[in-house]
Amino acid sequence: MENSDTNSSKLLVKGYGASGDLIGGKTLKPMEIYRDEPKADEVLIEVLYCGVCHSDLHQVNNDWKNTIYPCVPGHEIIGRVVETGNGVNDFAAGDIVGVGCMIDSCKQCASCESGEEQFCLGPVGPTMTYNGYFKPDGSGYNTFGGYSTHIISNQCFVLKVPEKLDIKAAAPILCAGVTTYSPLKQWGVKEGDKVGIIGIGGLGHMAVMLAKAMGAEVTAITTKEEKRNAALAIGADHVLISEDKQAMKNAEITFDYLLCTIPYAFDVNPYVCLLKPRGSLVTVGLLGPYKEPLNNMEAAKMGRSIGGSLIGGVAETQEVLDFCAEHGILPQVEMIDMKDINDALASIKNEEVRFRYVIDMKTMKEVEE
Amino acid sequence: MENSDTNSSKLLVKGYGASGDLIGGKTLKPMEIYRDEPKADEVLIEVLYCGVCHSDLHQVNNDWKNTIYPCVPGHEIIGRVVETGNGVNDFAAGDIVGVGCMIDSCKQCASCESGEEQFCLGPVGPTMTYNGYFKPDGSGYNTFGGYSTHIISNQCFVLKVPEKLDIKAAAPILCAGVTTYSPLKQWGVKEGDKVGIIGIGGLGHMAVMLAKAMGAEVTAITTKEEKRNAALAIGADHVLISEDKQAMKNAEITFDYLLCTIPYAFDVNPYVCLLKPRGSLVTVGLLGPYKEPLNNMEAAKMGRSIGGSLIGGVAETQEVLDFCAEHGILPQVEMIDMKDINDALASIKNEEVRFRYVIDMKTMKEVEE
Repeated sequence: MENSDTNSSKLLVKGYGASGDLIGGKTLKPMEIYRDEPKADEVLIEVLYCGVCHSDLHQVNNDWKNTIYPCVPGHEIIGRVVETGNGVNDFAAGDIVGVGCMIDSCKQCASCESGEEQFCLGPVGPTMTYNGYFKPDGSGYNTFGGYSTHIISNQCFVLKVPEKLDIKAAAPILCAGVTTYSPLKQWGVKEGDKVGIIGIGGLGHMAVMLAKAMGAEVTAITTKEEKRNAALAIGADHVLISEDKQAMKNAEITFDYLLCTIPYAFDVNPYVCLLKPRGSLVTVGLLGPYKEPLNNMEAAKMGRSIGGSLIGGVAETQEVLDFCAEHGILPQVEMIDMKDINDALASIKNEEVRFRYVIDMKTMKEVEE
Repeated sequence: MENSDTNSSKLLVKGYGASGDLIGGKTLKPMEIYRDEPKADEVLIEVLYCGVCHSDLHQVNNDWKNTIYPCVPGHEIIGRVVETGNGVNDFAAGDIVGVGCMIDSCKQCASCESGEEQFCLGPVGPTMTYNGYFKPDGSGYNTFGGYSTHIISNQCFVLKVPEKLDIKAAAPILCAGVTTYSPLKQWGVKEGDKVGIIGIGGLGHMAVMLAKAMGAEVTAITTKEEKRNAALAIGADHVLISEDKQAMKNAEITFDYLLCTIPYAFDVNPYVCLLKPRGSLVTVGLLGPYKEPLNNMEAAKMGRSIGGSLIGGVAETQEVLDFCAEHGILPQVEMIDMKDINDALASIKNEEVRFRYVIDMKTMKEVEE
């Protein structure tokens, strides 16, 4: 990290991102990026570990048609505070902290006031940790994520990492954790509730562990027979193979809640049939249209509903970090080096990763050298 | 009404139904139907008024592919008790009563025990007032509705009609009323909530009046500019024309709740965008697939949900009758003669009826003669 030659108020840091060039622009490479020096209410953080989220892949590939290049992904960040603005009281240099999917918001709208900064109604919405620039009217600005030596966040969006948590594995709690915790908490999942988790990957395996810790009877629902043992090992009470039509038929009208983490367009109707009367399904993995129209007959005849959910608010993110520490929940991670990120993204795309990759950001230095 | 020659335990009554014959079988005609004599826990009712619901049209036409012919529709029934079984204590001959969409259920399952008989989980589900036979495995049986001189219902499904209610206009409360009341009540709609009612017909006009009486700020949402004045006249605070793209854009993120009564396949996505964060849309009119897949991006980014709802439980039906009496709410009806029912159904199909037809069942006698 050094001050830039051309602008002494900016910090030049090393990142790893996609240039967006026509040829090879979706392959991540080392790049230099500028970050503003921390303002009075901001915190400068050295990134120690960064989780690799399916969103990183979507964003790099411009799957949502809103990617601003260069794109430096990463929003599951565990780091160490380097410097704080003079208006920051809750953090000091050396603190181990987390940064999730957002680094700022308007802090004034009804959503922000109710602790749901992810739904910020301010002029540019929440400032996402990367690809922050996403308003079609040209307002907003780009941001660079945690595939980088350093990151800066508004102090209100910096999380305290409980001492009990193993910081090597904790990063995915910042996105996969809160994304699945939020709907479970909204529902008020409790002892004895029957909860199905659809899709047992990065998000799904967190959801299984969180729902179990809340006391639910948890069924892991997956297309893949080979995920059965892994799902049972992390605590699922039952496994339902969604391609087994008879098993699906037998499971109709048996779930209070279904949390769906499938990250691509799928037909939601077979899952809706699994819900009891007044049951709810929430989809967190898919940020686009379902594959088929919902059959409202299935919804209406049992008063069922389907919803969407996006990460969670700051307070909820702190809550899930504390909840994981209290209940001994840790994401199942595979540590990788920064230079291996393109292979890791390919393996996520091919659904070869078991749960979650985390980049050991010490290896960023090797890239620099 | 007379005992049948062949079976003295059955009552021969006059009805008006569709034979289902290949030629002309979807045109309603006078027909004789047999009803069992009331059992100990049943009530025999002379039908005085019967509302004409959009479902009647769907069922007669076999739109849901489950119609059992002959089909005698009608599930918005106001009548007078003729006779009660010896286990019936709450009703006596001469009482003015209502019967809605159901005449029985298992009364033992979790849904029945929680007062949601419409979601009965018993072997044949709730017994619907007409076309009760609907299980693909062959269990269940056919039932005949209120387009008939007499009907028999289990006592638990007979409603008390408050004296304050004008019985000529009250019939649609039994289906259109409770169908829209139920989701409004589930949501807990209260003073100041912003509620949109989509589709201003039989169900929609009841929904506008009910939501207003609960204290909500109500917007009538319709494709038809010509419904504006009628919507304002029944109490809507605002009218939003859904084909006005700019008006729809301006209305984004402004509603707490949306109740959709459109009775055919439509694209739900433009309406989802109207919801505030955590807002809910419930569709009651459509019993089949939407026209387009839901875009979960719009749901997720604001934590929105879409659900379905089907009529309401018995207690809720009594509640809405009492609520309408208390708040002076009455369906806007146009009284028709029994013999004009085919014209009335055609006019519903062509969306020419303003709100609701009610059959004056005295005119059934004219048909008989």
